[in-house]
Amino acid sequence: MNPLTHAEGRRQLAAFYRDTLLHDVMPFWLKHGMDAEHDGIMTALDRDGSLLDTDKSIWFQGRAGWMFATLFNTLAPDRAFFDAAGSCLAFLEKHGYATDGKLFFTVTREGKPLRMRRYVYSEAFSAIANASYAKASGDERYADAARRDFAFYLRHSFEPGFMTPKVDSTTRPMVGIGALMIGIVTAQELRANLDHFEVGGRTATEWIDLFILDIQRLFFKPDLEVVMETVAPDGRLLDHLEGRLLNPGHAIECAWFILHEGRLRGEKGYIQLGLRMLDCMWKRGWDQEMGGLFYYRDVDDKPVQEYWHDMKFWWNHNETIIATLLAHEVTGDAKYAEMHRQVHDWSFKHFPDPEYGEWYGYLHRDGRVSQQAKGNMFKGPFHLPRMLWYCTQLLEEQDEKRG
Amino acid sequence: MNPLTHAEGRRQLAAFYRDTLLHDVMPFWLKHGMDAEHDGIMTALDRDGSLLDTDKSIWFQGRAGWMFATLFNTLAPDRAFFDAAGSCLAFLEKHGYATDGKLFFTVTREGKPLRMRRYVYSEAFSAIANASYAKASGDERYADAARRDFAFYLRHSFEPGFMTPKVDSTTRPMVGIGALMIGIVTAQELRANLDHFEVGGRTATEWIDLFILDIQRLFFKPDLEVVMETVAPDGRLLDHLEGRLLNPGHAIECAWFILHEGRLRGEKGYIQLGLRMLDCMWKRGWDQEMGGLFYYRDVDDKPVQEYWHDMKFWWNHNETIIATLLAHEVTGDAKYAEMHRQVHDWSFKHFPDPEYGEWYGYLHRDGRVSQQAKGNMFKGPFHLPRMLWYCTQLLEEQDEKRG
Repeated sequence: MNPLTHAEGRRQLAAFYRDTLLHDVMPFWLKHGMDAEHDGIMTALDRDGSLLDTDKSIWFQGRAGWMFATLFNTLAPDRAFFDAAGSCLAFLEKHGYATDGKLFFTVTREGKPLRMRRYVYSEAFSAIANASYAKASGDERYADAARRDFAFYLRHSFEPGFMTPKVDSTTRPMVGIGALMIGIVTAQELRANLDHFEVGGRTATEWIDLFILDIQRLFFKPDLEVVMETVAPDGRLLDHLEGRLLNPGHAIECAWFILHEGRLRGEKGYIQLGLRMLDCMWKRGWDQEMGGLFYYRDVDDKPVQEYWHDMKFWWNHNETIIATLLAHEVTGDAKYAEMHRQVHDWSFKHFPDPEYGEWYGYLHRDGRVSQQAKGNMFKGPFHLPRMLWYCTQLLEEQDEKRG
Repeated sequence: MNPLTHAEGRRQLAAFYRDTLLHDVMPFWLKHGMDAEHDGIMTALDRDGSLLDTDKSIWFQGRAGWMFATLFNTLAPDRAFFDAAGSCLAFLEKHGYATDGKLFFTVTREGKPLRMRRYVYSEAFSAIANASYAKASGDERYADAARRDFAFYLRHSFEPGFMTPKVDSTTRPMVGIGALMIGIVTAQELRANLDHFEVGGRTATEWIDLFILDIQRLFFKPDLEVVMETVAPDGRLLDHLEGRLLNPGHAIECAWFILHEGRLRGEKGYIQLGLRMLDCMWKRGWDQEMGGLFYYRDVDDKPVQEYWHDMKFWWNHNETIIATLLAHEVTGDAKYAEMHRQVHDWSFKHFPDPEYGEWYGYLHRDGRVSQQAKGNMFKGPFHLPRMLWYCTQLLEEQDEKRG
């Protein structure tokens, strides 16, 4: 029997997610990642937690800061989480910003600049960390920082001329789904944690509506049953390697951001859109032969440029566990309970490291570990604990509602 | 018996390389890649030669132009090769250059700009194409273009302040082996094909000596038995993920550039250096369990950032076939004949596509094909035909010498 369809199964699943979060995943990062000397977190950790690199990801000062503060605000009001969030935010404030207010991508352990990148995801992650810590601390300065960083994100991502495009925009103008998606989830977090929010004359909800509209209008192609990653500014498909490239786990992450919005506001249109996006990208991404989710696919099933396209990554499995659970909770449809079971079982069979805890990040197609490290500049305490946190909360909330 | 150790085996091997070059590999590209409408070559070809993307690699206008012209100048004075080289060079001249004289990375089929990158490898490949075509055509304008492009390459690569570093050079100054290696082989080609060569007050041979000196001084670590990819400007190891990263096939490519120089000039010091680089990086890179050459390793055998580190790529196998053959021809040491047999046999067992010709580019560790396309912006008629051409010539030259 599917655990989602009976009370005892649901209680056990919620307890399993909570326990994995609080007694496996978070202790790994608190113990091995925190920098007692310079503040902040170091995420390049080997299998056993030993340091592979002292360089710090600015993305992860924000992402981990958000996760720590959010656990403190919700499931686990534990001083250790509050302090860890404060440490990430102190480092971010002191060493994250270049003189123009843009955030770096990586800095040294001490905080000296290493890499600056074109895009502005550091700013979005800093915004959610500041917002969540503003709530945890009650300190309005963090709320101001959250609004400032998100305003910076919005200007750079959506005002023409701010961000240098990778590809010449006269020859081939292109837009990506990424900035819209991160816009949704960042606005959702700021709305949840700040008393008031308005940037560029729009509230968080108005920004979210705008982003969802653009995703539906430009990236979701019901006739082709697909969510694109990159299209022309008018939504036209670009028949090139990059234009045809699908990232099913990314689109499924986007689907749950939209489902979350639909559930929160009772917007049936958003729920329908999120479900259709999930349905079609599950079909595109799920590996029927070996299980798990392919990383990349081509919209026409042609070869993709990336030679590691068939590897199984931790993060898109986290997103798909959330999306399928949320789809089930919103609809009660047994199909989603079954999809959730498939991705949950495959993931928990292959990704966890029973010896040292946490998850491996990078598996071969058949589930064998390709690279044993637990973290790097892209993997740290974010996707996995967010999934465990979100799913625990969702199951407990739904069961409270049912009484 | 190893084929390299007896006359009949050597004749058969030379004939096999020549035949594969002229009746399998080059016809694939001439038939499927050449753009009769706009000139130049399109390299993003699927398994059967059908087009995956019309975008053009500027690297490949130079690399393919060089290969075509070089075949015309040496093994195969066939009009088709001369014309194909001319087509690549016409496209390059018309559409390759930005207004500041720097070359693009990709352009559209018609030649409109798509991507410009920081570094200047397009310029080095354009230089060798122009030099080789200058010899083929007898037209001195191409010789001038070759000198101009190589001068641009040298200035951007080695004069401080020209190229924006990826990582902040105040915080962590780093130097890579790549620009020196490409400097050697580009200077070798210009010396071989141009009547006179002098850039920045140095002849080609003087530039080569300078580059080899720096490689020996900074990147080759005899105590650790390793060739590094990235070090501090004083040669110090950088104990970070990027600093520890080894690319055995790349270092082995560098080894044969140095062996080639040593053989040509009878410089025993260069021959010794090349052999030691080959020996230690073979040990680091050869997969004892499944055969073939790993892509990346860590100098301390720690996990590397790249999750696809254990894949088998076509190009480093091509470089290792050349290096081991050259090491054998220079030394007569049976050890190298054996290494050559290993890498030759593994490569020709797994990479060729017997149905449509040419080689696959990207295999899983065990030799299964991961991505079936024959080309993209990084794979085209260069590493594989260069290996077949170099090895054919080397075997035939050595046997002529022996009489």
